[in-house]
Amino acid sequence: MKLATVRDGTPDGVLHIVSRDLTRSVAATEIVPTLQAALEQWDRVAPLLQRLSDALNEGHVAGAVALGTLNLAAPLPRAWQWLDASAFHSHGDLLEKVFGLAPPPDKHSVPLMYQGAGDELLGANDDVPLPAEEDGMDFEAEVVAFVDRVPMGTSAAQAEGHIRLLTIANDTSLRALAAKDLKTGFGFLQSKAATSFGPVAVTPDELGEAWRDGRVHLPLHVHWNGVEFGRPNCSAMGFSFGELIEHAARTRNLAAGTLIGSGTVSNENFREVGSACIVERRAIELVDEGQSRTGFMKFGDRVRIEMLDAHGQSIFGAIDQAYVQANFQLGHRRAWTTRSILHGTLSKARGNRRGQGGKQP
Amino acid sequence: MKLATVRDGTPDGVLHIVSRDLTRSVAATEIVPTLQAALEQWDRVAPLLQRLSDALNEGHVAGAVALGTLNLAAPLPRAWQWLDASAFHSHGDLLEKVFGLAPPPDKHSVPLMYQGAGDELLGANDDVPLPAEEDGMDFEAEVVAFVDRVPMGTSAAQAEGHIRLLTIANDTSLRALAAKDLKTGFGFLQSKAATSFGPVAVTPDELGEAWRDGRVHLPLHVHWNGVEFGRPNCSAMGFSFGELIEHAARTRNLAAGTLIGSGTVSNENFREVGSACIVERRAIELVDEGQSRTGFMKFGDRVRIEMLDAHGQSIFGAIDQAYVQANFQLGHRRAWTTRSILHGTLSKARGNRRGQGGKQP
Repeated sequence: MKLATVRDGTPDGVLHIVSRDLTRSVAATEIVPTLQAALEQWDRVAPLLQRLSDALNEGHVAGAVALGTLNLAAPLPRAWQWLDASAFHSHGDLLEKVFGLAPPPDKHSVPLMYQGAGDELLGANDDVPLPAEEDGMDFEAEVVAFVDRVPMGTSAAQAEGHIRLLTIANDTSLRALAAKDLKTGFGFLQSKAATSFGPVAVTPDELGEAWRDGRVHLPLHVHWNGVEFGRPNCSAMGFSFGELIEHAARTRNLAAGTLIGSGTVSNENFREVGSACIVERRAIELVDEGQSRTGFMKFGDRVRIEMLDAHGQSIFGAIDQAYVQANFQLGHRRAWTTRSILHGTLSKARGNRRGQGGKQP
Repeated sequence: MKLATVRDGTPDGVLHIVSRDLTRSVAATEIVPTLQAALEQWDRVAPLLQRLSDALNEGHVAGAVALGTLNLAAPLPRAWQWLDASAFHSHGDLLEKVFGLAPPPDKHSVPLMYQGAGDELLGANDDVPLPAEEDGMDFEAEVVAFVDRVPMGTSAAQAEGHIRLLTIANDTSLRALAAKDLKTGFGFLQSKAATSFGPVAVTPDELGEAWRDGRVHLPLHVHWNGVEFGRPNCSAMGFSFGELIEHAARTRNLAAGTLIGSGTVSNENFREVGSACIVERRAIELVDEGQSRTGFMKFGDRVRIEMLDAHGQSIFGAIDQAYVQANFQLGHRRAWTTRSILHGTLSKARGNRRGQGGKQP
């Protein structure tokens, strides 16, 4: 089944069931109010949600509405833990080489993982408000697993059973700040802004044969300002999601609703399939041409991230969002709305109503 | 005023007002149910809470109970962001020297800060369940500020106005895992277990003259198994809490209820006043004697952390807790209860009823 969260002015929104073809949606309120609550009692509510999903897909649900009319938040608008790995070795190996970084110990046997901020996660069509282009704004397209409660000491094999949902994400990174964060050893902090998530999260069975070995065996399509940037396959993860969860839970419990990210998707043949973030392309240019030609993002730029199934059907819906300058006077949540009103710059590029998060407080 | 959270089986517990002398407590339920909710609407509820606090201190409140009869959680049993700095230069300088670490860039002008897990914060008398003594179990006594919502781009001067509460904390660290985490550059993950917090959080005015320059000007008393280990003064912070918050909010908003930690307290004259964590003492021994004599903690060890005012009165109450082996079969929350029942090892050492968190789910 496929799940989404509709904004209603509360921090956690309202849980909806979405049809497999992403056209129709119905509130799950009578079963459970929010996705966080669903993940806290998954075994009990999942069969009820599945029944509603089946009825929706068969066209038997009264009260279903067109998905495109809804204002979607991230499936989890906030998460108690957001743990993001860097699980694609071709990405890490290239960046170490180019930036002269010391390879982390046991880098191909122990996952790299940082703790991100989970308190304010952006929806798929929300603008990304940031303070300055000079910070080196970059997207990072990746896959994310949602777990129910994982006790400390859970093994990789056990961990796969805790993966309840999957989606795609854009882990916005500020490259001019990343090197400094890395050098402290204390991890990415200023260099990681709020992360954005796909419109819809799906149970692993929705991926069929494409979900196996704790990995998603499909390419992730990334477009920057309407031009294809990359389509690396997510199957190249150097660690399975089960292994990432085992690593995360070594000395702590993970609360229900913890998010585990794959890190930016990358394939060894990145020269053919492209990349899922700008810094990787810049590194390839540096190796091949002696200098980086591609600049980082400018305000007004858009990124689109989507995964298609074997029939070309979108699985999670698309992340499609603009990067905008934060307005510190107004508080960033309203900044882009003001820009839209004053300049009309964003409304033109906005493809559907789900992006109109500015109606929210 | 002084605030605490009483366990009631729900994740966020019930907000209480505690008398200045830490003897009596009354539920604030009629004003606001939880501390998280209070921090989300501080300007509205703080005057109402203050009125209840004044009445409690004057002995005019019906329904007040003895604080010692209550089962306290951490003031915030879970937090949307837990950001912990390393703001005491004497600690960082010593450890860099001893471990041959490269000094972080601009280390005395840019704060060091890592993102911790906020999903499961321990109360002052909860046991700390961990997988293995071999991980190098250590305490870290520090001071923590609670903020209301801080918008991206907030300056240090503005930030001090967002500090609504202060308390003490024990940021449990696993030293055998820390070097590896540091070397990845991705920050502390496996090397940081759940953090424990003082029984009571207080508004800065409760500290009187001891709260100035965005710092707490009082020593933090640390005992390990009943023996004084250190009493470093928190005034030596190399950055004010305002500066730490500015650093954290450079490229992100901080949700109401974000916790900002000082990092382990340390003074330049650590040979006289002692330390707030074992690794610092071991480093001093290494410098002075050529080798570290003091070992890390063993299961069954206790740490006590407390701050006294000028009259010797406890400000936040004491953190006083045991380190125990996690029982993966039962899930760690119930592990020590089972130990207590089977072996009677912990109940003996337990000083008051607030430690009996095992009644909770």
